[in-house]
Amino acid sequence: MLKINDNFQKLPGGYLFPEIARRVKAFSAESPSMPIIRLGIGDVTRPLASAVIDAMHKAVDEMGHEETFRGYCDEIGYDFLRSVIAENDYKKRGVDIGADEIYISDGAKSDCGNIGDLFALDNIVAVCDPVYPVYVDTNAMAGRAGNYSSSEGKWSDLIYLPCTAENDFFPDLPGRVPDIIYICSPNNPTGAAATYEQLKLWVDYANKNGSLILFDSAYEAFISDPKLPHSIFEIPGAETCAIEFRSFSKTAGFTGTRCAYTVISKYLERGGVKLGSMWNRRQCTKFNGVPYIVQRAAEAVYTPEGHAQIMDTINYYHENAKIILSGLKASGLEAYGGVNAPYIWFKAPDGAGSWEFFDILLRRACVVTTPGSGFGPSGEGYIRVTAFGSRSNTEIAVQRIQDIL
Amino acid sequence: MLKINDNFQKLPGGYLFPEIARRVKAFSAESPSMPIIRLGIGDVTRPLASAVIDAMHKAVDEMGHEETFRGYCDEIGYDFLRSVIAENDYKKRGVDIGADEIYISDGAKSDCGNIGDLFALDNIVAVCDPVYPVYVDTNAMAGRAGNYSSSEGKWSDLIYLPCTAENDFFPDLPGRVPDIIYICSPNNPTGAAATYEQLKLWVDYANKNGSLILFDSAYEAFISDPKLPHSIFEIPGAETCAIEFRSFSKTAGFTGTRCAYTVISKYLERGGVKLGSMWNRRQCTKFNGVPYIVQRAAEAVYTPEGHAQIMDTINYYHENAKIILSGLKASGLEAYGGVNAPYIWFKAPDGAGSWEFFDILLRRACVVTTPGSGFGPSGEGYIRVTAFGSRSNTEIAVQRIQDIL
Repeated sequence: MLKINDNFQKLPGGYLFPEIARRVKAFSAESPSMPIIRLGIGDVTRPLASAVIDAMHKAVDEMGHEETFRGYCDEIGYDFLRSVIAENDYKKRGVDIGADEIYISDGAKSDCGNIGDLFALDNIVAVCDPVYPVYVDTNAMAGRAGNYSSSEGKWSDLIYLPCTAENDFFPDLPGRVPDIIYICSPNNPTGAAATYEQLKLWVDYANKNGSLILFDSAYEAFISDPKLPHSIFEIPGAETCAIEFRSFSKTAGFTGTRCAYTVISKYLERGGVKLGSMWNRRQCTKFNGVPYIVQRAAEAVYTPEGHAQIMDTINYYHENAKIILSGLKASGLEAYGGVNAPYIWFKAPDGAGSWEFFDILLRRACVVTTPGSGFGPSGEGYIRVTAFGSRSNTEIAVQRIQDIL
Repeated sequence: MLKINDNFQKLPGGYLFPEIARRVKAFSAESPSMPIIRLGIGDVTRPLASAVIDAMHKAVDEMGHEETFRGYCDEIGYDFLRSVIAENDYKKRGVDIGADEIYISDGAKSDCGNIGDLFALDNIVAVCDPVYPVYVDTNAMAGRAGNYSSSEGKWSDLIYLPCTAENDFFPDLPGRVPDIIYICSPNNPTGAAATYEQLKLWVDYANKNGSLILFDSAYEAFISDPKLPHSIFEIPGAETCAIEFRSFSKTAGFTGTRCAYTVISKYLERGGVKLGSMWNRRQCTKFNGVPYIVQRAAEAVYTPEGHAQIMDTINYYHENAKIILSGLKASGLEAYGGVNAPYIWFKAPDGAGSWEFFDILLRRACVVTTPGSGFGPSGEGYIRVTAFGSRSNTEIAVQRIQDIL
């Protein structure tokens, strides 16, 4: 008799985004007076760069001719893409990461989830609070999170690292030593970006304790402060204690195009086993690579034209973020992020709860946001807004929020 | 201190295809007299259908304009693709599978591997012998296979179901009841395709015992005998005991384009839990969907032109298979498959071992094949040849093999 993985049954039913969708749908059915503006889910809206479009057309044509057709690629990606990544995202920043330490994939969400295959089930996991739910849910499914308490909003076996205004939204070292630590910078959902010193604290701690840092830098392209590190590998010692996840989703608008990569230094090993080799084996066995067309699209992001075009788009979103941040602050709200990240994180006024203020924004301003409590108990009382909307929608949404306050 | 998943260390080092690559490379370095022809790895060589190319160009253009740009899709795929699959691959064959029971993914290899997330670690797994290595290795990584004995070529905790000439390469029911049973038809590597009666035997057995059949029909498009089932869901009762994996890789030459789907009936549940809901949750948490462009490419396979074009290609490979099969038989070899599958499976002459005859074919005929023993102990003494080469290479390879015999 087949036995299912019972850990799935422990996952709380009211998953964040479906619950948002449910409330928006119910409200839509009541015919709101204004069109609804969605600044909830962090999905991009600007079209792909023309250099990327051109590269894809060319690659599509190649697939239509016998001489240039491509079948299976190496599961971990084509050298042409791995090389430009190593050169542009690492070497140019003075970071010694080679093409052979870069593993192409279809998404940072896939990689953040699938990387768990490499680790024993009894590792102790630490997550920031609030946190991107994928880190928590994938560990819960694997059985590393224990049991969920809906009253506390916490899993019994996870170490929660509160990130609040008090600690500049960056986690303090915990009392109990975790084996695996997830850090996301620039942060989703708070929009905070870690400094060199903040990351160094964790790198040193991980090396001292043999812990592993899973560093999600999917939003690094949004860093505008030149003093901030873009990669954990800018911190000496990270090569022996960290894995980095990067994505083209937000950098180049690839949420519907799908390409990302994971970086594992050749020096990262535990018990004499190289984690890069393990990941290679995992991917060769359970993955078949990213479409050739998409890898050519990603390569085009690194051409001079491609780079200029994606930076135009990032600046567009940055400007949106500035409009939101200054608009919310002008209305007297306590608002964070938005400078080195596409997310603005603000405190609901008058001590309102996250869902309570979400509903007020939805019903009175017709603006969809994300309730901070959906990211963890320390997110309670906060709201996340994304800068990925169109300019006009962003301006209207801010005006509407100001009007109801 | 991070603990790695020790099961990875149990995997035998000499993985099949890297070992083939190593031997081919070594031989190449010795400058063979003839160019090497590769009929080893099952990768396609014909270009994509023009209907698919046209659909991709159109989709690429859409991604370049704000009004038609697509970001995240539902993790389990666009309705437009799920609907044409349900209609063409199921309803047209009289099988009651709806679009809501179809889950789009980037590959059958990914799905066959990732589906394991849904099952407890103490399930007993049965695999055919010989077998596609992914079923074995993914379970070994998860800890369901026990320990590997290199002398036996077997894992301690797996049930092996021999598939040999004696049982027409279709597994007999085992003495011990497995919880999970992998069946691949048309089969990789043997090229055998299961009959309705053969599948019914297993469906009834699985329903009686509460077992789950993981049915890989990635090669169903190669079935030429009109009496054979294309889907396990053509067998009454399969909806309560089977999950089916399908792929566009071999059907439409998508090995470098990446699209597949998994079919889970809404009636499939264990312990009151629907496996379709579990898979949906798994994919929503650890996957972000297939590129929009690729889903449009897959949709085009179902247009009248697209269908005619992919059938032309399949007929081309079928003709290759016929040339190989008749050529090997004409040389007195005991050869199987090749009629309802793109693989030909033949017995090495004079009782030669798989690797021994692989080396003879490589060194004397300059033809790369796959040694049957790489697929399991019952594959010893057999060789797999694929029909995916070009016509001229296929003809030359068969001639060379005939010449050395």
